[in-house]
Amino acid sequence: MAAPTTTPAKESKVDVLIVGAGPAGYMAALWFARLGIKTKIIDKRSTQIFTGQADGLQPRVLEVFETFGFVDRAIKEVAVGYEACFYEPDENGLIRRVDKLPEGVPGISRFNGSVIHQGRIETWLSDAITEFSNGTLNVERPYLPQSLEIEAADTPTPSEYPVKVVLKKLPDDNASPEQFGHKVQNGLYRQFGGDQQNPVPGAESGDDLETVHAKYVLGCDGAHSWVRKQLGIEHKGETTDYVWGVLDIVPVTDFPDIRKRCSIHSKDGGSIMVIPREDGIVRFYIQLREGDHIATVDPAEPTTTPTGEKKPATRVDRTKLTAEHILATAQKIMHPYSLEVAEMHWFTAYQIGQRVATAFQKDQRVFIAGDACHTHSPKAGQGMNVSMMDTFNLAWKLAYVIKGLAKPSILPTYESERMTVAQDLIAYDQKLSRLFSSKPGEISTDEFRRVIDQGSAFTTGCTVNYQTSLLIDKPAAEDNVTPYYSPLATKLAIGMRLPDTKLVMQSDARPWYLNQRLPSTGQFRVLVFIGDYAQTPALKAQMEAIGAYLAKPENSLQRLRTDGVLQTMLIHASPQAKVEWDDFPLVFRPRDERGVMDYWLVMADTPSLHETTGNAYETYGIEKGVGALVVLRPDGYVAKVVEPTVEGVKGVWDWLSQFVVGLTPTEI
Amino acid sequence: MAAPTTTPAKESKVDVLIVGAGPAGYMAALWFARLGIKTKIIDKRSTQIFTGQADGLQPRVLEVFETFGFVDRAIKEVAVGYEACFYEPDENGLIRRVDKLPEGVPGISRFNGSVIHQGRIETWLSDAITEFSNGTLNVERPYLPQSLEIEAADTPTPSEYPVKVVLKKLPDDNASPEQFGHKVQNGLYRQFGGDQQNPVPGAESGDDLETVHAKYVLGCDGAHSWVRKQLGIEHKGETTDYVWGVLDIVPVTDFPDIRKRCSIHSKDGGSIMVIPREDGIVRFYIQLREGDHIATVDPAEPTTTPTGEKKPATRVDRTKLTAEHILATAQKIMHPYSLEVAEMHWFTAYQIGQRVATAFQKDQRVFIAGDACHTHSPKAGQGMNVSMMDTFNLAWKLAYVIKGLAKPSILPTYESERMTVAQDLIAYDQKLSRLFSSKPGEISTDEFRRVIDQGSAFTTGCTVNYQTSLLIDKPAAEDNVTPYYSPLATKLAIGMRLPDTKLVMQSDARPWYLNQRLPSTGQFRVLVFIGDYAQTPALKAQMEAIGAYLAKPENSLQRLRTDGVLQTMLIHASPQAKVEWDDFPLVFRPRDERGVMDYWLVMADTPSLHETTGNAYETYGIEKGVGALVVLRPDGYVAKVVEPTVEGVKGVWDWLSQFVVGLTPTEI
Repeated sequence: MAAPTTTPAKESKVDVLIVGAGPAGYMAALWFARLGIKTKIIDKRSTQIFTGQADGLQPRVLEVFETFGFVDRAIKEVAVGYEACFYEPDENGLIRRVDKLPEGVPGISRFNGSVIHQGRIETWLSDAITEFSNGTLNVERPYLPQSLEIEAADTPTPSEYPVKVVLKKLPDDNASPEQFGHKVQNGLYRQFGGDQQNPVPGAESGDDLETVHAKYVLGCDGAHSWVRKQLGIEHKGETTDYVWGVLDIVPVTDFPDIRKRCSIHSKDGGSIMVIPREDGIVRFYIQLREGDHIATVDPAEPTTTPTGEKKPATRVDRTKLTAEHILATAQKIMHPYSLEVAEMHWFTAYQIGQRVATAFQKDQRVFIAGDACHTHSPKAGQGMNVSMMDTFNLAWKLAYVIKGLAKPSILPTYESERMTVAQDLIAYDQKLSRLFSSKPGEISTDEFRRVIDQGSAFTTGCTVNYQTSLLIDKPAAEDNVTPYYSPLATKLAIGMRLPDTKLVMQSDARPWYLNQRLPSTGQFRVLVFIGDYAQTPALKAQMEAIGAYLAKPENSLQRLRTDGVLQTMLIHASPQAKVEWDDFPLVFRPRDERGVMDYWLVMADTPSLHETTGNAYETYGIEKGVGALVVLRPDGYVAKVVEPTVEGVKGVWDWLSQFVVGLTPTEI
Repeated sequence: MAAPTTTPAKESKVDVLIVGAGPAGYMAALWFARLGIKTKIIDKRSTQIFTGQADGLQPRVLEVFETFGFVDRAIKEVAVGYEACFYEPDENGLIRRVDKLPEGVPGISRFNGSVIHQGRIETWLSDAITEFSNGTLNVERPYLPQSLEIEAADTPTPSEYPVKVVLKKLPDDNASPEQFGHKVQNGLYRQFGGDQQNPVPGAESGDDLETVHAKYVLGCDGAHSWVRKQLGIEHKGETTDYVWGVLDIVPVTDFPDIRKRCSIHSKDGGSIMVIPREDGIVRFYIQLREGDHIATVDPAEPTTTPTGEKKPATRVDRTKLTAEHILATAQKIMHPYSLEVAEMHWFTAYQIGQRVATAFQKDQRVFIAGDACHTHSPKAGQGMNVSMMDTFNLAWKLAYVIKGLAKPSILPTYESERMTVAQDLIAYDQKLSRLFSSKPGEISTDEFRRVIDQGSAFTTGCTVNYQTSLLIDKPAAEDNVTPYYSPLATKLAIGMRLPDTKLVMQSDARPWYLNQRLPSTGQFRVLVFIGDYAQTPALKAQMEAIGAYLAKPENSLQRLRTDGVLQTMLIHASPQAKVEWDDFPLVFRPRDERGVMDYWLVMADTPSLHETTGNAYETYGIEKGVGALVVLRPDGYVAKVVEPTVEGVKGVWDWLSQFVVGLTPTEI
């Protein structure tokens, strides 16, 4: 849309403008704060949210939190899912437990799927942003975007800041919907929030307006994304007839599995999902099948939307939905177990819609992420996670381009990588929603559990498998499911996140999870698995040759290391008795300008008396007599696997030179 | 001494006055903040310390930090000792590594001995005090005590606040010795701080004075304790001839084991201990044998002190001791390895003195703790730990008496329990100091390592074994070393801290270390190990009988549970498939006044698919077909072990009635 006629009183220039401070916006801001990118983040609400909303944290997101240094805060506060129970009607029509399974996928990650209300998660993110930015990056509230213009790609004199956004500051009281505390009245805020009125009503004054000139803009502004609409991107999919209620309560109950994740199918009353939460809270997802809040759509109305999508046959009359009604439905399903409320923290209801945006960006200048890209039912606990992982994928790439370190040609990988994830998510959610919303007899318990079981790995977030691209060096595949393994590392899939394992720091013998040594610093990492070099003369020679090669002053990889773009680490598998510190080439033991050595880049896959270690090579399928050289992207995904030789290093160099600015293919 | 003649302008009443905000004082304040005791804590310095001083954290202290909720802060910041190296002169007189051993005692605790500068530790303690006290308890600085009077025990009208202390507020600039940053000049602050001048010099004005009326006073005011002197308690022991220097530096070196704990004996230059620290710092303890800073005492001087103790034959002339001299000595010992300084954080020198106070209290009203009770060399890293554990032992007992929950007869256990620890510590330190300060040939390397090895368990802090007393119910022993085990729990020593193990929460299947479920809340705990009740009818009957007995309204143990003095937990060992939540008596699943159930008091010793669990009964030597009932004190030490029957519970009741106010022996 066009810029407003009133002249904004303020004007600013930023590298990135983030519209929307939810999980996706916060995660982007976190990366930008960490990497020193000049960022502005705005939100239309006058305060952070404090209750309700999303609550699930995938193992993969907890791994990412660890790389930013605050997973310990999560672990102390969350409720963790370790067991799932399944209830079905018995011969008398009363629900009874029919099965008990481990929740999640034991061993896939050090973390298990966890839950806590969204406000806490945003607080951890926000605190980390404050820390990394030294307090300079804060969410500006309440602001609404008014207009967005992207400079034409063929403009004769391209600007450094080609995106122009006009923002409007709102009066504080306009932007504080009731969302707090235990008030029953406030539950419908988000699901039925609807679209932004545009232009924002109220007297137009230049004093309230600000023009932001940005290199890039991120629309992290939710399911009704204003940014998405400005870009003319379609949000494709449909709204189903399924209506569900949500209650966050501290229950009074005699239900014996109330602190386990439960799927309950009643005979006539519908289904419930039980998700125990922090501080004695339990979240209930409750199927709503009856009641005067569900209206059949007038047959005279058109059955499709203007864009041709099928409209649901029923719709929720939100004015008639109360917490009392949702609770009464839950009580009926839970019968013969009792369910009363000691504290009501939040409630809402939603009609399941499943949609994916048809594009995630425009002109590689304005991007959308999170709910703006994909919406679905909340039951698999995926929404907030996939949203955070969207910008965890995008923001480092933007930072590389903004800093002049990488070519803009890396940016399209955001859409290609994350749209696949979004589509997979919607496909899973459709299956799951149908299961949960099915009537008795429609779907067998066995089928139900099979779908859940198959989905377990997916919902951990650890199985995301990025396709072949400029940033993932593997043969093009027919699908994005089957992992691709190099013969050098037969259990380390290229395109997937590095699985965690425990190693021993060579210099001080301290055991570490590898993920703890791979903080999100924005560096590409070359992990040289040099095997049992002490007992394999060829590997010793290779290690020394790699060290000598990397140390050559004319080697431009050296510059990348100095610039902090590339970090090289050595992971050997020789017995400690055969190892001396001075064995290792100085590139793996570099000294700073004062002469102080870096003692933290050589690790050993060796047993420790103190903790269980020594399985890394086995975990990754790397032969101790052969080794491997593994390249990780800044987001921890395996980009490339080659042999641990000078030739292998040259291969990494040539690969990097495709997108690293100023790096030509191997000259030496 | 008598009160000053000037009338103090201020007057206050507190439960406890703590003199001195070092580790001992902070730990006392932490307990008092946690338990809601009205406390005043003063310190003579105008700010916290930021560098140097003590740096060692025992595993046991880390366990205690966990019970107060902040061990995660420690784990993120500390350097941990995992390996120890031993260097001796080779045939050419050059040092070389002769051995490498695991540091500490693998398996004794989940934590390993760790190091970080004292200032950080005091910050964690201080932050936790702020949190528990809602910001109401803060160290008041800079204050010096001026006078201390204890009301006579036989006074006809005893006061509620029988200790009177007059405090003097110092001007801020008087109390800020240079101790910060990397200044070489500031290292001698503490070791040579000397005695407080008394009365404090300066114009006496009532405005600067405050009279504090306290129920109890704690002297945590260091080696030169003013409180100890007021009580007339002797600090018995001697100062040796051994002089050591300390450097906290970021080194530039080619010494290969600089990130491991090393003991280095050179041929002629003396010894060094290397303790790698946080942030690239390394602490060096350097034996100083030569130089003009060491003066032989004039033979004409008396060779004993006025109290009859032997005086050292040499003494340090502190004006001649510089960081440069200490560094030069270190360089000589480290030869042929290089040692230069990139950053100097702190230095000091000390002449080893080993002393224990002859009493730790007076009239059970004024207590001393920490360095005020025991001083010794810092090399075993014990001082700060034993100091914190002193007040960790004392403060909950005082809180019980102050709150009217326990009889004052429990207070003498502080001196009896902690004096033994202090004496053991001094004995160990004497052995260790002699070893470290010995000349080549005096003591063999083998003997050296044997002493270190034997001392390893001691220095973890996990082997402290409290003797028989009102608070430790076991047969009186000949020594305080040999652990005593009940036949019901053959690996769970009565008088020692509960070793940690991992259990599974029955309600939600989450694995927990037991220590994480035993926070320092001030509660005594009864852990009912009911064994495999589901497959042992006798145990099932016992469990139900205990539940019924505890639930009787006329059972006064009920009152203790309601008052939060006693917490009962159940730990069973039945297979999950045989267990139902409703099996457990309601006393282990209590409901609050709203009807909300406590789901966190029943745990299972059962394998988990997610983590390694299921060894608790074996760890504690408890038979699954017999069980045991274990009583823990609020500080986590095992107080009593009986059979898991109503008779056993009655035994606990009778035992508690000896010191719990208002609890008579079993009536029912």
